[in-house]
Amino acid sequence: MIGLVCDLGGTNARFGLTVEGRLAPETLETYANDGFADFPSVLAAYRSRHPSLAVDAVCVAMAAVPTPDGARLTNRDWDIRRIDIADICGTNDIHFLNDFEALGLSLLRTEELETKELFAGLPPAGPATRLVLGAGTGFNAAACFPPSIGPTPYVSAAECGHMTLPVEGADEMSLQHYLARGRGRASNERALSGRGLFEIYLWCCERNARPAILPGPSDVAAQAIADADPDAREAADYFLRFLGRVAGDLALAFLPFGGIYLSAGATRALAPLIGSSATFIEAFRAKGRQAELMTSFPISLLLDDRAALSGCAEWLRLQSRTA
Amino acid sequence: MIGLVCDLGGTNARFGLTVEGRLAPETLETYANDGFADFPSVLAAYRSRHPSLAVDAVCVAMAAVPTPDGARLTNRDWDIRRIDIADICGTNDIHFLNDFEALGLSLLRTEELETKELFAGLPPAGPATRLVLGAGTGFNAAACFPPSIGPTPYVSAAECGHMTLPVEGADEMSLQHYLARGRGRASNERALSGRGLFEIYLWCCERNARPAILPGPSDVAAQAIADADPDAREAADYFLRFLGRVAGDLALAFLPFGGIYLSAGATRALAPLIGSSATFIEAFRAKGRQAELMTSFPISLLLDDRAALSGCAEWLRLQSRTA
Repeated sequence: MIGLVCDLGGTNARFGLTVEGRLAPETLETYANDGFADFPSVLAAYRSRHPSLAVDAVCVAMAAVPTPDGARLTNRDWDIRRIDIADICGTNDIHFLNDFEALGLSLLRTEELETKELFAGLPPAGPATRLVLGAGTGFNAAACFPPSIGPTPYVSAAECGHMTLPVEGADEMSLQHYLARGRGRASNERALSGRGLFEIYLWCCERNARPAILPGPSDVAAQAIADADPDAREAADYFLRFLGRVAGDLALAFLPFGGIYLSAGATRALAPLIGSSATFIEAFRAKGRQAELMTSFPISLLLDDRAALSGCAEWLRLQSRTA
Repeated sequence: MIGLVCDLGGTNARFGLTVEGRLAPETLETYANDGFADFPSVLAAYRSRHPSLAVDAVCVAMAAVPTPDGARLTNRDWDIRRIDIADICGTNDIHFLNDFEALGLSLLRTEELETKELFAGLPPAGPATRLVLGAGTGFNAAACFPPSIGPTPYVSAAECGHMTLPVEGADEMSLQHYLARGRGRASNERALSGRGLFEIYLWCCERNARPAILPGPSDVAAQAIADADPDAREAADYFLRFLGRVAGDLALAFLPFGGIYLSAGATRALAPLIGSSATFIEAFRAKGRQAELMTSFPISLLLDDRAALSGCAEWLRLQSRTA
């Protein structure tokens, strides 16, 4: 069986082919969405690279809550429609996953992915829940639950970026107020995203009465890691505190004794500081009477760009196994 | 097969017997924990009511994160140990569930439980996730995921009471500061519990410069429902806003298109106001760009005291089916 898999983020579209549920590495390609008018255009561009190959099934992971017919991307004005995919790929066996659902599925094969452990936890007693979370264009998470009674795992979809950003103390309240301006509220991804990191930086500059000289989030991340700009460093510190606190909250919601995997662009841009500064882990563990429980969860970086595609391949493999 | 099931909360211990995985209603009994020194004492008291019956399996649901050997109750200084249960019940087939895990399992049979729909959602496309959450002695939630690929559902355990209480605006920040005094932080259950409702009431009295005349949370709930005391009414309003906001956040984490069930003592004490005042539902739906998604989730009250016992029975039934 030949599958076409796609990982469609707000910024990039990644594609690959699968053979019997395994990714074929030589078929992987990445396109910048800005270069295309809509999803059918970028899909057709990739499809034209393998014109003679018959595709049996398609699985698209995307930053949206998909319906059976498709979805609209959350962070880009694109419609992903079953009918367009069927037309371009020549099959009606089409599956949609939330992008983090796909990352969750990839946790079934972490041994095949590039990861790096940051904090050791306790070895779980048996098969245990794993959780992937991270900040990129937006923020989200997915849990991969082990088989309880029965043969298959369960991966949950979520929209964690839109949960209320949890703030503590007067400084963070002032930041919440800043992030909420013109919107009425501040969600997790108002802070925990590339754009969020940049907005926190702008707020730091404003209250430190210094001009904002850095042009975008990747510059903020780079300057923070180099400890070369005090406002960037302060912004990264707020970001890491929110990331730790929200990761801790989600750990309490999902109890991932099998491990937490941190992923997505903005998270990875700040990765060196997650392990080296105390900010992230202190915020993660600051859960009162459950502080000891919080040391149980191993925490790793998921560094692999192919993870969501690997999850899509896993989905097609599970589908064909039970078909 | 005869099962003994127990729902052990901070305040009460409920017991029952199951026959082939179904609760026998005439065997249900409730004991106040304050009347007993420890868990073996209250278990022995119930066991002595059916001295001639051989018990094949035991399932205990409790307000704790259980290990295979047992647990310590989160809100009471009691140890629940496998060895004591084996001794008293005469079987080694012993299972531990988190109390909300048991409530989650009860969602497999909501048609047998007393529920009341407060807000209609959208009918789900197929089998869909359900979520139970609520404030009692503490706060927690559990999701019941439908079978994805395979025959059985999956119910997730959690410790949602210890997540960070999400506050917005200066008033709530001041309340967060009050709830956090002497503890360094305010978790969800510092507000969302019987004790939490009472602390919010004390804070309302303090800032309204009125004496706190009500002696406990049930009085606060009763006076709020009767609209007979302005501080109780204000406290209930804060409580409902937090409950709505946290329920909304958990809905985004679990996407329970199959329905949200509100349960536990403090939630039920304020139940008339959840549906009749706009506070709860407005806070639930205030999720920015996902406001429309939030109208998809049906919201009901789970009014049945037997729900956790029913979940334990369901657990024993699923175990015996796959044994």
